[in-house]
Amino acid sequence: MDTNETGTAVTIIGLGLMGRALAGAFLKAGHPTTVWNRTAAKADELVAEGAQSAASLADALTASPLTILCLTDYQAVHELLGAHGSGLDDSEPDDSGPHGPGTHSSGPHSPHPHSPGTHSPGTHSPGPAGTTLVNLTSGDSTQARETAEWAGRHGVRYLDGAIMAVPPVIGTAEAVILLSGPRPVFAAHEPVLAALGTVTHLGADPGLASLYDVAGLAMMWSVLNAWLQGTALLRTAGVDAASYAPFAQRIAAVVATWLPGYAAQIDSGSFPAVVSALETDARAMTHLIEESEAAGVNAELPKLFKSMADRAIAAGHGGEQYPVLIEEFGRPAA
Amino acid sequence: MDTNETGTAVTIIGLGLMGRALAGAFLKAGHPTTVWNRTAAKADELVAEGAQSAASLADALTASPLTILCLTDYQAVHELLGAHGSGLDDSEPDDSGPHGPGTHSSGPHSPHPHSPGTHSPGTHSPGPAGTTLVNLTSGDSTQARETAEWAGRHGVRYLDGAIMAVPPVIGTAEAVILLSGPRPVFAAHEPVLAALGTVTHLGADPGLASLYDVAGLAMMWSVLNAWLQGTALLRTAGVDAASYAPFAQRIAAVVATWLPGYAAQIDSGSFPAVVSALETDARAMTHLIEESEAAGVNAELPKLFKSMADRAIAAGHGGEQYPVLIEEFGRPAA
Ligand SMILES: NC(=O)c1ccc[n+]([C@@H]2O[C@H](COP(=O)([O-])OP(=O)(O)OC[C@H]3O[C@@H](n4cnc5c(N)ncnc54)[C@H](OP(=O)(O)O)[C@@H]3O)[C@@H](O)[C@H]2O)c1
Ligand SMILES: NC(=O)c1ccc[n+]([C@@H]2O[C@H](COP(=O)([O-])OP(=O)(O)OC[C@H]3O[C@@H](n4cnc5c(N)ncnc54)[C@H](OP(=O)(O)O)[C@@H]3O)[C@@H](O)[C@H]2O)c1
Repeated sequence: MDTNETGTAVTIIGLGLMGRALAGAFLKAGHPTTVWNRTAAKADELVAEGAQSAASLADALTASPLTILCLTDYQAVHELLGAHGSGLDDSEPDDSGPHGPGTHSSGPHSPHPHSPGTHSPGTHSPGPAGTTLVNLTSGDSTQARETAEWAGRHGVRYLDGAIMAVPPVIGTAEAVILLSGPRPVFAAHEPVLAALGTVTHLGADPGLASLYDVAGLAMMWSVLNAWLQGTALLRTAGVDAASYAPFAQRIAAVVATWLPGYAAQIDSGSFPAVVSALETDARAMTHLIEESEAAGVNAELPKLFKSMADRAIAAGHGGEQYPVLIEEFGRPAA
Repeated sequence: MDTNETGTAVTIIGLGLMGRALAGAFLKAGHPTTVWNRTAAKADELVAEGAQSAASLADALTASPLTILCLTDYQAVHELLGAHGSGLDDSEPDDSGPHGPGTHSSGPHSPHPHSPGTHSPGTHSPGPAGTTLVNLTSGDSTQARETAEWAGRHGVRYLDGAIMAVPPVIGTAEAVILLSGPRPVFAAHEPVLAALGTVTHLGADPGLASLYDVAGLAMMWSVLNAWLQGTALLRTAGVDAASYAPFAQRIAAVVATWLPGYAAQIDSGSFPAVVSALETDARAMTHLIEESEAAGVNAELPKLFKSMADRAIAAGHGGEQYPVLIEEFGRPAA
């Protein structure tokens, strides 16, 4: 496998907003870049910039040692690769079996690799086993794991990924690209993938990229929501959002630095109240609820904080430190 | 007023865990330090380190141009200063009036400056109008504003404050001390107060320190909760807390840097979807809920994110950017 840092050929399938940004970053980094899109016209601008347009999907899949997929969703991936003579159509009769009960594969985001009508077992074009598929389409961990199994059954090397960035920053260090799947497969392609941004391998479980992705989004929404809660509160006292924001920014940055230390408590299963006890936090949460209600702002978020803390206190953890709440976060609400 | 950076006398009233740390920091910075505590023995160690023990509360209140209060709560502050011959007892007959309806001054955290039994209008010791009171006792903005009014009626200069730190870091830059009240009063004492840590004046409204304090705590709990949500999710895939923490830390730090820019949207009341639209966030929130439920972890926090976003979308803001949610945070839940 070619691991030169430049000059290695790469193929992009799916030229939406994101796929075009990915292809542009590879071109800019000097990689011979082949592109394919269902709606062919979306390749035109990239071709003008030096990309090769594949005449067919099968040509696209055999053009490069590395093929990036970036489509709307996993259903689109499976419709595309399971049909249209891609050579990835799956004719094993019984493989609707591996999804055990409890996975949400019947939900709106489930893959449908065997949907009637998209399945064409009669096609026998050359298989793409010579390429490594890197699927950067957004989806959940179940879809990622199922797609990895499906690739495995076809002898296709596969990495699943998630893009934590918007198209304009692709190709800069700010673009975080998460990848999961076999480490040797990642290692072989890391130098090429690095053209996209800050590329991180999370582990062999192909579901990890999706899990880190949504966990990271949860952090994003939490920081934004806490900032909105504080901004709403301060606005009632005549403080504008711009005056409050630097304070919120500083607190978030400081608390972020505590996480590795707190993680050690979780991994050791021991939560001594080194800095403060959960019941001290719970009392201060009451102040936050009261301040919010007195100011006439929303108190749902503070009340949720308090209800989770109260449950942990009721379970006997009031004298321990905040991360003991992992027990509440780790199980469904009663 | 003496504004030398060292050598200025200061008095600390209340020598609990925090009060002793405050007194220790002043001593260390070279300020002549007078101390007083209801239970006198708590002064012993500080006296051994060079503090002066005031013989009475009245002596304490006249010993220095700056007097710090750090008691359990505002009720203790008012019990102490409204009685016991402090000279701050309030004999105006009608001043239970200023608390309008809608303040929660009858709640468990309300001040009781005129509680029967603690009020001793017959005492006439020398008043403490020569000192500035800086009240670092934790409380809410209503209590702070009421206490400032009460000080104003007695001709006492007053700042209200909140300590966003634990005792061991007092005296270091890590200790954030928020103060609010008249800027000239702050300016006069800032050089002395700086011995306690990073001291910030927030504005003339004495309620601001309490509001920033709870808003900052909301950020703290939000970052911790989002990290716990992600940690719980990743643990189901065999990832330990220590492996996930640096990722959560990085996301929180990056999102924090967005806040000043997002604040500009709030202050201008215009929320163009420069980076992404709220409905894109809402779709990804669905993934977070589904991943959490599929993994058997708690989904209450993700569901709250989604319900607030859904309300804003229902109100017609789906095409705008995330900070448009300020409208939901700014009003009570229906
Ligand atoms: N844009 C972002 O900010 C961003 C950020 C992070 C992650 N992502 C993820 O990146 C992926 C692509 O996003 P995007 O913004 O590029 O979306 P987009 O602009 O809507 O493009 C969707 C792409 O999928 C193709 N497609 C959809 N269904 C197909 C099918 N059944 N068969 C073949 N091709 C199909 C489309 O082809 P046609 O042109 O023929 O319709 C198009 O190339 C999504 O999973 C998204 O969540 C996007
Ligand atoms: N400790 C922290 O980590 C921390 C952090 C931030 C803010 N704070 C705030 O700082 C303040 C003090 O906390 P702390 O940790 O020092 O508490 P503490 O150790 O419990 O000390 C409480 C102090 O208040 C005095 N007191 C209580 N009721 C009184 C009354 N009616 N009359 C006279 N004195 C009275 C106590 O005097 P006796 O000794 O005679 O009982 C003692 O000096 C609280 O508002 C707290 O929320 C503390």
